[in-house]
Amino acid sequence: MHKILFLPHQKEIQVKDKEVLLRAAMEAGVHINASCGGAGVCGKCRVLIEEGQVEGGISEKLSKEDLEKGYRQACLAAVVSDLVIRVPVESAIDAEVLNLAAVPRKTARIQEMNLDQLKEKGLFVPPVEKKYLELIPPSAQDNLPDTTRLLSFLKLVHDEHRLEVDLSVLRKIPDVLREQDFKVTAVLARPVREKDGRTRIINVQPGDTTDHNYAIAMDIGTTTIYGQLLNLRTGDVLAQYGDFNGQISYGEDVISRIVYAEKPGGLEKLHQVVIETVNKIILRLFRHARIDTEAVSTITLAGNTTMTQLFLKINPRYIRRSPYVPASTLFPPIRAVDLGLAVGDHVTALFYPALSSYVGGDIVSGVMGSGMYRSEALALFMDIGTNAEIVIGNKDWLACAACSAGPAFEGGGIRFGMRATKGAIEDFSIDPVTLEPMFITIGNVKPKGICGSGLISVVATLLETGVISNDGKFNRDLKTPRVRAVDGIWEYVLAFKDETQIDRDITLSEPDIDNLIRAKGALFSGCMTLLEEVGLSIKDVEQIYLAGGFGSYVDLEKAMTIGLLPETDPDKVRYVGNGSLMGAKMSALTNRIRRDVVEVTRKMTNFELSETTSYMDHYIAALFLPHTDLEHFPRLKTRLEARKSLRTG
Amino acid sequence: MHKILFLPHQKEIQVKDKEVLLRAAMEAGVHINASCGGAGVCGKCRVLIEEGQVEGGISEKLSKEDLEKGYRQACLAAVVSDLVIRVPVESAIDAEVLNLAAVPRKTARIQEMNLDQLKEKGLFVPPVEKKYLELIPPSAQDNLPDTTRLLSFLKLVHDEHRLEVDLSVLRKIPDVLREQDFKVTAVLARPVREKDGRTRIINVQPGDTTDHNYAIAMDIGTTTIYGQLLNLRTGDVLAQYGDFNGQISYGEDVISRIVYAEKPGGLEKLHQVVIETVNKIILRLFRHARIDTEAVSTITLAGNTTMTQLFLKINPRYIRRSPYVPASTLFPPIRAVDLGLAVGDHVTALFYPALSSYVGGDIVSGVMGSGMYRSEALALFMDIGTNAEIVIGNKDWLACAACSAGPAFEGGGIRFGMRATKGAIEDFSIDPVTLEPMFITIGNVKPKGICGSGLISVVATLLETGVISNDGKFNRDLKTPRVRAVDGIWEYVLAFKDETQIDRDITLSEPDIDNLIRAKGALFSGCMTLLEEVGLSIKDVEQIYLAGGFGSYVDLEKAMTIGLLPETDPDKVRYVGNGSLMGAKMSALTNRIRRDVVEVTRKMTNFELSETTSYMDHYIAALFLPHTDLEHFPRLKTRLEARKSLRTG
Repeated sequence: MHKILFLPHQKEIQVKDKEVLLRAAMEAGVHINASCGGAGVCGKCRVLIEEGQVEGGISEKLSKEDLEKGYRQACLAAVVSDLVIRVPVESAIDAEVLNLAAVPRKTARIQEMNLDQLKEKGLFVPPVEKKYLELIPPSAQDNLPDTTRLLSFLKLVHDEHRLEVDLSVLRKIPDVLREQDFKVTAVLARPVREKDGRTRIINVQPGDTTDHNYAIAMDIGTTTIYGQLLNLRTGDVLAQYGDFNGQISYGEDVISRIVYAEKPGGLEKLHQVVIETVNKIILRLFRHARIDTEAVSTITLAGNTTMTQLFLKINPRYIRRSPYVPASTLFPPIRAVDLGLAVGDHVTALFYPALSSYVGGDIVSGVMGSGMYRSEALALFMDIGTNAEIVIGNKDWLACAACSAGPAFEGGGIRFGMRATKGAIEDFSIDPVTLEPMFITIGNVKPKGICGSGLISVVATLLETGVISNDGKFNRDLKTPRVRAVDGIWEYVLAFKDETQIDRDITLSEPDIDNLIRAKGALFSGCMTLLEEVGLSIKDVEQIYLAGGFGSYVDLEKAMTIGLLPETDPDKVRYVGNGSLMGAKMSALTNRIRRDVVEVTRKMTNFELSETTSYMDHYIAALFLPHTDLEHFPRLKTRLEARKSLRTG
Repeated sequence: MHKILFLPHQKEIQVKDKEVLLRAAMEAGVHINASCGGAGVCGKCRVLIEEGQVEGGISEKLSKEDLEKGYRQACLAAVVSDLVIRVPVESAIDAEVLNLAAVPRKTARIQEMNLDQLKEKGLFVPPVEKKYLELIPPSAQDNLPDTTRLLSFLKLVHDEHRLEVDLSVLRKIPDVLREQDFKVTAVLARPVREKDGRTRIINVQPGDTTDHNYAIAMDIGTTTIYGQLLNLRTGDVLAQYGDFNGQISYGEDVISRIVYAEKPGGLEKLHQVVIETVNKIILRLFRHARIDTEAVSTITLAGNTTMTQLFLKINPRYIRRSPYVPASTLFPPIRAVDLGLAVGDHVTALFYPALSSYVGGDIVSGVMGSGMYRSEALALFMDIGTNAEIVIGNKDWLACAACSAGPAFEGGGIRFGMRATKGAIEDFSIDPVTLEPMFITIGNVKPKGICGSGLISVVATLLETGVISNDGKFNRDLKTPRVRAVDGIWEYVLAFKDETQIDRDITLSEPDIDNLIRAKGALFSGCMTLLEEVGLSIKDVEQIYLAGGFGSYVDLEKAMTIGLLPETDPDKVRYVGNGSLMGAKMSALTNRIRRDVVEVTRKMTNFELSETTSYMDHYIAALFLPHTDLEHFPRLKTRLEARKSLRTG
């Protein structure tokens, strides 16, 4: 056995001889960037061996300088002695940025839930309600059982019938009834529909607690998890908090999570880790709002299919294997404590249904949150991330598809790519003469890398200023030290070594741009193919909803410039923000959503784009900036032509 | 701290100074008879101090000889040194007798469940069924989620609709479907009524397992617990096993259990102990029948109200306090593993509903088992034990009541009384001339004491032979060493010291007889009062059902001789045996019972006899052998008169 000390975490762990260093870090709960899942390909898992020896860990992904300093690739290094390992700053996860007040982007039009409308329509009826009762205490002439007494008063006073009682209520009812002289509050959980079953009495509390009825809404993302604490009396959000999904240390994307889940004990570990993250968020919400566990009556959750299965400890193995079959797309209400959630034992967890392996509950939740399922207008809903999901339709029909864009939008496959956390370059412009950059980073600190929205900004700017051409290649004739070839690979230097946090030049290279082009090509092709499948074109789309963390930060004009989005009137675009969280919130505030969502999923047709022949044609046509066919981008075409004539003129 | 070694158990425990010895034994899980709950009154908890010293423990309940030998009363003795304690043979619990093949008594007419009739009527439909399916495996053209696939085939092939799926099924469905090429068996749990909810898919198993569908039926008695393993394909009982309820060590009757449950940690302890007993039985049933846990689909249980509440860990505090309110009389289906039961996590435990604090699920179960709720004939159902429960009625109406008979029928309050276990005198006759006894014991071994049915046999015989008179006093003029007065208390010697296992004379004294008279008086008065309340007399009763362990062993004629039962045509009497277990079995074999039982409990009117003025009058009139009014006992009157004339003649 060898002892490893990870810095700056100060975490120590014992591992057996020849253990892979990346695995040891996972075991210790230390996060090291590793977007290829330990395959040795991405080169992101570099760590500094401060003391001791490793075997291997050397690859061409590491610079000579790095190798000399003692950096090794953790996924390729075997532990052969006691070690002191320093994890470099680019691997640090910093949840702080997740909890910054969201800054709406420039002209962004934000789609929000309309609580007042919900109230006006009488739909503000949460799935869990509280009813206060003053029971007549038992006597020799009337010694009904406690439960029977409660049930008969609920019928008499509140016209509640067809009720059933949870065991946890039976366990507390004798003492609770007698605590405040048979004055009690009953907590009632509704079935989806009346005909689906009975209303359950899930809790009884002494006295009148009807003023204190709360819910938690959760978005279980692959990368980030957000929770909201909701007041079910008013509909207000009392607190919101986000954190990175603890599963990140076990793989960056759903595929590598599934791979990890297939290892012995892997599924249990991933389940446990995500529950820990959620409990951390719940605890923080409780503390922030100063309410206690007992006052929370329900928890609603939305996540993609893999995240939901891992959350529920359901083997996700077949999600990643053709023909891509999930275990289930509907999930029963589940007692939250059975999942290990840090809430009262009366709380039921309600999960959003999914549609398929790659169109999950997060998308369904977003569709509900956006309201497009209730509208006459034809809408296009996009959630852009590693997997991009697209939904087209209106209140009468819905079609959806997922396409694998690759990790570029989340900073993956890009040498200095990173998640949208502190130190990420998120916006960028260039001096058209000197070609010197100006950029801002998240948190306004020295840069560590480029996040997805930054990447789009950089590439769009380089394109519009002619630093790169339509095929993503650098103009070889520019006179600036910023554009250079290293080992035959052309790149643009965003920040020189001294200006960075990472002690290396931050650059964007042609292979990076290629990766982005492939990612945006996949997404664009997905939109086109799906529209074609339903016999429509982009011109028919009356509304575009952009969901997801990435979708919320992206600069519309620049996204259209690179051909990520079809060029449309920006007024048609609405930012949904975290649509998954919005949908989860809605289902906590109105039980009607739980009924509607079943109908919505029945209306939704899933298209497997990989089964569609035209997808590849669209894809290849889209491997250009913005596209081989500039007719799709009339405004950009005009600008480019104007610039050309300016230069040549 | 002191160390105590209990013999012959070889159990050792550490206790703090001055701990009560009885409590130390409880802690160690060593049973010592203590029918007064540690009050120092019954004198049964004598133990031999083989090594070390105790403080106190001396009382007039112990003979001089016992005291000299080193016997002390465990409930009065404080531990002040390390000890070696020998628990005498009369305290030994021996479950063996519970599992002897039941010997029907002489002319006994046994009421049994008619399985064939059930099958003929199409009612042999268990609450849990298995359905075999051969699914079409998924393909690129048909990649429905696993659960959706299963549901659609269940609908198509078996016309099963309105289904819901348990989380445990979602967790196993991906692998189970693929284990035998999408050939699976689904296990379906029915709701009580279709309109009460959906059928739940509680398990999926690879291949065709429809031949292996089993249930466990359980009777949770205060003293004994019986379990049956049932084949749900055939209705056959594959194994049956009984054991003493482990809670005995914490109090002999329901009241002392409730008292114990009110102590800190007491409820948890009693819950845990009864679950342990049940798991022991389940394990033995599995072993005996060589089936595995996975094949058991459901467990049905019946117990009195206190036993049910303790089983479910529901505070029973208010059951023993006026106005005697139970927490609930209806219990939801409960996931068995949540209760700690050693069955699969798909198994739901179904509990019989109760009627009131003292007419519990065991009685309701017995009423269902007897079939009286379906019959035109007016029937009287009696379950005789420490608490005797009486039900009168037929298919149209039912009235019930409980009366506390005291522990005499189970050997309590009788100096040499004991439970119906090995060594208990169970039948008795006397030579009318020499007055020498002849008796048989359970297990045919040297006697340890007298059980309830033995007690009735002895008293009836002593009465018929004139050894005692109608008021239960001994005839002072008899010339036999068997009848004697010790310290002014008259008694009959059933067995002299040398003939016993306990190294003491086994006797029956006038105070013992008084206790029996009070017990049978309470029961008789209960019957009379309840009949009177519903405007009927004993002559109207067309059928008598005797339930309970005691009820099954009792000699009818002798029970009528002492006035325990009203004198009726023995042909009217049916022995139900363990009615509670029979009812539990029935509800495992036919889901219809679960529906019917709700209606039956609605039809049942509970009478609180203590609230009835005539109860005490009837009771006082019944404090005679058999009764102050011999007109109720015409046959006995004739016999007694014949004997009198024989003597005087």
